[in-house]
Amino acid sequence: MIKARITVTLKNGVLDPQGKAIEHALSGLGFDGVGAVRQGKVFDVELAESDKAKAEADLNAMCDKLLANTVIENYSVTLT
Amino acid sequence: MIKARITVTLKNGVLDPQGKAIEHALSGLGFDGVGAVRQGKVFDVELAESDKAKAEADLNAMCDKLLANTVIENYSVTLT
Repeated sequence: MIKARITVTLKNGVLDPQGKAIEHALSGLGFDGVGAVRQGKVFDVELAESDKAKAEADLNAMCDKLLANTVIENYSVTLT
Repeated sequence: MIKARITVTLKNGVLDPQGKAIEHALSGLGFDGVGAVRQGKVFDVELAESDKAKAEADLNAMCDKLLANTVIENYSVTLT
């Protein structure tokens, strides 16, 4: 069994209102010097597969088809 | 300036309906052998701070106070 972590983040230049809201909330809580905050998603996936190369190809396909919107998001796959 | 990535994931045993939905969607798309899927959040934070220890303490405090619900979520902070 292979475990993987997929991280999906917004591309640079794409507006992130959720991140902005967090920025303001952190300032409001008294944390000074907080610059840009960007929020993304993380998926921990378990695969019943022993071939690492095959697993990685599958995971990339999953991101392209379902997990990430590649118009506005980047993704990275790491096997853990 | 310090950049950090905060990863917030659900604790083991906490139900994750969103992850379950993704599991089913992936099976429906023809990906076989997908086991558990768990979804979490990731925050990329920029701090105007040069002291790494201070930054890490601040980031942990941010997680405790705002970014994570420590009753049901774990978080990890990595400086990048």
